[in-house]
Amino acid sequence: MNYKISKFYQDMPTGNFAPAKRTSNFKLMQDPAYFPFGAGNPSPDTFPVDKIREVYNEIFTTPALTKATLNYGFGAGYEPFLSNTKAWLNKLYGSMVTENDDMMATAGGAEALAFPTMVLTDPGDVAIVEDPTFSATLSMFKHNGLTCVPVPMQTDGMDIEKLEAALKANPKAKLIYVISTFQNPTGYTTSTEKRKAIYALAQKYDVIILEDNPYGELRYSGEVINPIKTLDTDGRVVYCSSYSKIMSPGIRLGYIIGNKALMPVVQTARINVHASMLAQVMVGEFMNKYDLMEHIKSCCDYYRVKRDIMYNTLKENMPDSVTVSYPEGGLFLWVDLPEGCLSGPLSEKLLENKVIVFDGAGFQVDKSVPSHGMRLNFSMPSETQIEKGCKLMAEVTKAYLAGK
Amino acid sequence: MNYKISKFYQDMPTGNFAPAKRTSNFKLMQDPAYFPFGAGNPSPDTFPVDKIREVYNEIFTTPALTKATLNYGFGAGYEPFLSNTKAWLNKLYGSMVTENDDMMATAGGAEALAFPTMVLTDPGDVAIVEDPTFSATLSMFKHNGLTCVPVPMQTDGMDIEKLEAALKANPKAKLIYVISTFQNPTGYTTSTEKRKAIYALAQKYDVIILEDNPYGELRYSGEVINPIKTLDTDGRVVYCSSYSKIMSPGIRLGYIIGNKALMPVVQTARINVHASMLAQVMVGEFMNKYDLMEHIKSCCDYYRVKRDIMYNTLKENMPDSVTVSYPEGGLFLWVDLPEGCLSGPLSEKLLENKVIVFDGAGFQVDKSVPSHGMRLNFSMPSETQIEKGCKLMAEVTKAYLAGK
Repeated sequence: MNYKISKFYQDMPTGNFAPAKRTSNFKLMQDPAYFPFGAGNPSPDTFPVDKIREVYNEIFTTPALTKATLNYGFGAGYEPFLSNTKAWLNKLYGSMVTENDDMMATAGGAEALAFPTMVLTDPGDVAIVEDPTFSATLSMFKHNGLTCVPVPMQTDGMDIEKLEAALKANPKAKLIYVISTFQNPTGYTTSTEKRKAIYALAQKYDVIILEDNPYGELRYSGEVINPIKTLDTDGRVVYCSSYSKIMSPGIRLGYIIGNKALMPVVQTARINVHASMLAQVMVGEFMNKYDLMEHIKSCCDYYRVKRDIMYNTLKENMPDSVTVSYPEGGLFLWVDLPEGCLSGPLSEKLLENKVIVFDGAGFQVDKSVPSHGMRLNFSMPSETQIEKGCKLMAEVTKAYLAGK
Repeated sequence: MNYKISKFYQDMPTGNFAPAKRTSNFKLMQDPAYFPFGAGNPSPDTFPVDKIREVYNEIFTTPALTKATLNYGFGAGYEPFLSNTKAWLNKLYGSMVTENDDMMATAGGAEALAFPTMVLTDPGDVAIVEDPTFSATLSMFKHNGLTCVPVPMQTDGMDIEKLEAALKANPKAKLIYVISTFQNPTGYTTSTEKRKAIYALAQKYDVIILEDNPYGELRYSGEVINPIKTLDTDGRVVYCSSYSKIMSPGIRLGYIIGNKALMPVVQTARINVHASMLAQVMVGEFMNKYDLMEHIKSCCDYYRVKRDIMYNTLKENMPDSVTVSYPEGGLFLWVDLPEGCLSGPLSEKLLENKVIVFDGAGFQVDKSVPSHGMRLNFSMPSETQIEKGCKLMAEVTKAYLAGK
């Protein structure tokens, strides 16, 4: 039959049924002949496999835990998981989860962003976004009928003047989407000053801040900067994060923290009853048995070495006209070409040379605007791959810039 | 702040943050002083705990399985899970999953219904539904901006004349939602004749059939009736089901089967990257190690006894004017009061007497229309609770009808 597809879903399918470029790059990234800097995954080397095995062993030999895991749970989540996560966040960031807040477990961080969007926007509304930003969130906004208005991302967060201009020009703006720490794709962190400025503008124009922080706890240097959520006095920040990067993405476990008056409505958007009990009971028990911060510290020790090798190799070998960011955490490093040089053709040249990077255009609201930047991931490649691949990348980039 | 809630989400929150009636009944159902016939859960007695423990033990001692479980997976699902499920369904029902179909794993059956709805409808469209039907699907349709048009449910499926009238009267109808076997809430099964008639009408009016079959494999008597999906020559049936009732609901694992041309689009609606690998790898391995049908047979043996006790006790004790359905499977039995007698006030009287049933009005498109029927669940109460509770229910019902 001739399917009548919703007007909100008429973009090209990008899933793994379709022979999309993304899928073939994914396959190439498994090929040891390639330098795989294109991924967004945490490294499997960091998964606490032995501890997880121990926890499951306990779960399936303890009748109360077995029962909690295999039965239906509550829409908000499994209480020990929620309370352990709240306590951990409050220890990390001060007053993150207050008595005015509720928390809901989700099937990963992407779903955490979707539910508030579903209840807080109508088709035709506007989402203000960092540009570039996480492409899956852009698709999710589009599927909810939203128009995304981009605000340029700077090394310390959104351009505040342009953010205010965007809010002023778009009375239908309902939310500002901010990946506040170690942003995807740039790796940039929004400064405390800009966090305050973004919050003040959200108040002035009465919009929600959808704060996304899946990388925030992976800090390898510098001082902790508290989430925008900790500045919130109005209940206008909806905070979303996940255990994908600090525990395991396959377990699909994230969470939303928001005001008690809003969260019951957010819960009605849930299309899957509740988050996996297999994941919630495991992480809840993990936090009872082990020190989560100790585990995260070991992840940071592992990633810090890779970040440093990638940064130092690029810094030493790239032409001076190329800007290489030094992220204090997360999984990504951002390479900016000089004015007038496009990253799209360079990304393709790099691929021909078996270096896989993610061209910045893929993270833009308007993907047809040429980009000057590329995202490099340092969590998946080995230290040797990082060193060799970055040297090769520098050579290819030099030749490319020389040919301009 | 004053939250501006989407026009599609302005119904009352029913989640467990809110002090909803549903939650308090849920709590009462844990109270041994009550007869808990109000649930929709499978019985924890049927969960194959020992086998699941064995499978997890294998997963977390086999590096390849550990890796598959903790890493990101594919949006469509984990291949061994998908292929084992396809093979099992084809063995059960003949040609269920053809070479023209694709399959996608989801976080349970409710999510399986949501994704096709998201891509195949726009706000203002119409969904034709059995009346009464599963209330969570009605909410999901409403949240997608659909108008639900009810077609009366009969003991052998929808009233076909009224179905055609509804299709004729609603040119914006995009789908017919059918719980084809052991329907929730009535327990009724759509006959083969009506399956053919519904399919023919879907062809005539060019609409999708969203077939929901979470209870279908729990058959205690009678002959297997193949899903409407097996009649499909056009690719217009989207088949949704789950492992919640035959394995465990806490694992949150369901699936969608649909035409290869449609499924890549359905996949773009996914808001959570992929279904839990903890669930997919477990069920995939479960089917490698054990005979799923043998496990389901043991569930059926368990439930058959309870169904028979509930049916026989009601049949012997209820006034003749009350109709008690004899479902050939599933988790529910339907009690219909005689013409002119409302089930709402009786349900409340039953609750005063500590018998919890689910009044039919909660499953209607228009919940304000009084109902004559009540859903009784026999999976959760013990055999003794069923016998005592049904005798008490018959007494209360007699007194209620005598007082009319």
